[in-house]
Amino acid sequence: MPLLDLTADVVTLTAAVVDIASESHHEQVIADEVEARLLELDHLQVVRDGHTIIARTELGRSSRVVIAGHLDTVPANGNFPSRLDGDVLHGLGTCDMKGGVAIALHLAATVPDPAWDVTWVFYEAEEVAAEFNGLGRIARERPELLAADFAILMEPSDAGIEAGCQGTLRVDVTTGGERAHSARSWRGSNAIHAAGEVLARLRAYEPRRVVIDGLEYREGLNAVGISGGVAGNVIPDACTVTVNFRFAPDRDEAAALAHVQEVFDGFDLVVTDSAPGALPGLTAPAAAAFVEAVGESPRPKYGWTDVAQFSVLGVPAVNYGPGDPNFAHKANEHVPVEHLHRVERRLREWLTT
Amino acid sequence: MPLLDLTADVVTLTAAVVDIASESHHEQVIADEVEARLLELDHLQVVRDGHTIIARTELGRSSRVVIAGHLDTVPANGNFPSRLDGDVLHGLGTCDMKGGVAIALHLAATVPDPAWDVTWVFYEAEEVAAEFNGLGRIARERPELLAADFAILMEPSDAGIEAGCQGTLRVDVTTGGERAHSARSWRGSNAIHAAGEVLARLRAYEPRRVVIDGLEYREGLNAVGISGGVAGNVIPDACTVTVNFRFAPDRDEAAALAHVQEVFDGFDLVVTDSAPGALPGLTAPAAAAFVEAVGESPRPKYGWTDVAQFSVLGVPAVNYGPGDPNFAHKANEHVPVEHLHRVERRLREWLTT
Repeated sequence: MPLLDLTADVVTLTAAVVDIASESHHEQVIADEVEARLLELDHLQVVRDGHTIIARTELGRSSRVVIAGHLDTVPANGNFPSRLDGDVLHGLGTCDMKGGVAIALHLAATVPDPAWDVTWVFYEAEEVAAEFNGLGRIARERPELLAADFAILMEPSDAGIEAGCQGTLRVDVTTGGERAHSARSWRGSNAIHAAGEVLARLRAYEPRRVVIDGLEYREGLNAVGISGGVAGNVIPDACTVTVNFRFAPDRDEAAALAHVQEVFDGFDLVVTDSAPGALPGLTAPAAAAFVEAVGESPRPKYGWTDVAQFSVLGVPAVNYGPGDPNFAHKANEHVPVEHLHRVERRLREWLTT
Repeated sequence: MPLLDLTADVVTLTAAVVDIASESHHEQVIADEVEARLLELDHLQVVRDGHTIIARTELGRSSRVVIAGHLDTVPANGNFPSRLDGDVLHGLGTCDMKGGVAIALHLAATVPDPAWDVTWVFYEAEEVAAEFNGLGRIARERPELLAADFAILMEPSDAGIEAGCQGTLRVDVTTGGERAHSARSWRGSNAIHAAGEVLARLRAYEPRRVVIDGLEYREGLNAVGISGGVAGNVIPDACTVTVNFRFAPDRDEAAALAHVQEVFDGFDLVVTDSAPGALPGLTAPAAAAFVEAVGESPRPKYGWTDVAQFSVLGVPAVNYGPGDPNFAHKANEHVPVEHLHRVERRLREWLTT
């Protein structure tokens, strides 16, 4: 007997998807089930790549959209399996992002003739290091499978549209010095004191706000770590400040790095992490139609999500899914039933009119 | 056959003392040997307490001096046993401080009738945490054994007199904040940025220089450690700067702390370590006679040594021993033969005239 009935009501279906445990790197069972159910649908062409399933309509429409969600969750935290309590469905993954996955599966099964060709993507390993990310692997190795005019990533967005995303850059800013016994500190040079200038520049920094496609993106430049010191009686000869720059999507990674280098002119910088932002791209016809169908003003996305994977491929993308993202990865993760119904209804309207 | 011949030349005797391994907490063999050899000397009254040996003349002199050295060493570092190479004796403890111990043992054996009554102290566990220090234990539990008008601690001082010592205070200065996702940094408050003010005060600080008994002591206020950060995408809510204040001996511990509290007014401080300085006390008659016998201008001691243990007991104390302290705890530790001979000769002159 199948674990999932894709024609069931989205609350029932979300609970069923949640109840298939699928912590990152353990997506075999859920991927097998999703693949099997999608293969039963004659209107979809199904491709499997690892534990990532791609199902496409081939209706010859003038536009194609991608609707994507990841199948994995973070580890359980006393919140498995699901539990329906009145108007709220509780449990691991209800918010991030099996509610969105269930809606996508339900629409894939019940909208055989959408107004746009649709590429449904259900992928693995979003919650772990980028190298394992199923969507990233497809984007690198089989980008033709993701070709589209517009993409919706069903990450929790409080059932509103969060457009584009910030980029993120992480650098280590290191200061040097010369060791000496702290009883004779004048013979050395204190690297932690030198790092004071790094912190002074961070404190004086005024982050930019920029409006793109009518959305205001706020940047931020912050120390997220600092470490220095040799021993309690030694003037330290090294200190490292780890700085995270969250940048608006009108800067690319190179421009973001150049900006940070300018801020820390005179210091040694080592880049430890970099990911591009994503422009909201709300002017594309399919995107504009989607915004109109949802009927709400898009908000800018603060944070980095896999929408950037689409942006790199030249596909405008938004986050749109049920659930408050503040409850993602929390023991009290949950999704409002109303979100599930509303997001399903709006997507159905957009796909069928 | 005895391991040590106290009447041997001080270079030979230093090598023999070095060649009895005595890393901290492993002083049994050396303490047994020192005790046995001192017990053979009729002019000394010997007390053993743990692995600390105290040998006293009881000649009824008007003044009493303490001459002390620790028996333990840091762990070997490819520098055991000793090796005589021309005018330099190499090896673990040659400098810190078995050269001084050998001179003291030699004088204890060969000066039976000194001008001042002498209390010779050979103690354990100086190189490890203060709670194990043999001299500190005697000072706390049997202070009468250390009663004297003047004390010489035979720590390496480049064969010059280093008078008194700085005190040391270590505090953790902690800043707080509020966590937030670094993509929405304006919702949090960055504790590392707040620590920038701590570093700013350290950078602006002008350490005092003060002359005491003709000696200039230099103070220093330094960050010796800093740590903060939760994760690469989190605005941190705590940062700790570990600050070490090395203070001139005209401040006591309470005054030193009050000063540091004033510097960091408005911040949370936790004291993690505090030890008093020691005034040079060169005006006492036995001290003045010693300075005259050595014939060199005393220098201030930069650093904390066990002379402070005597200072707490009201006994003025100096550091005076063979060897350059910069080579203590180093693989290339060594002592010049000339230092051994000179320090022995000067102490003998002072004790016998």
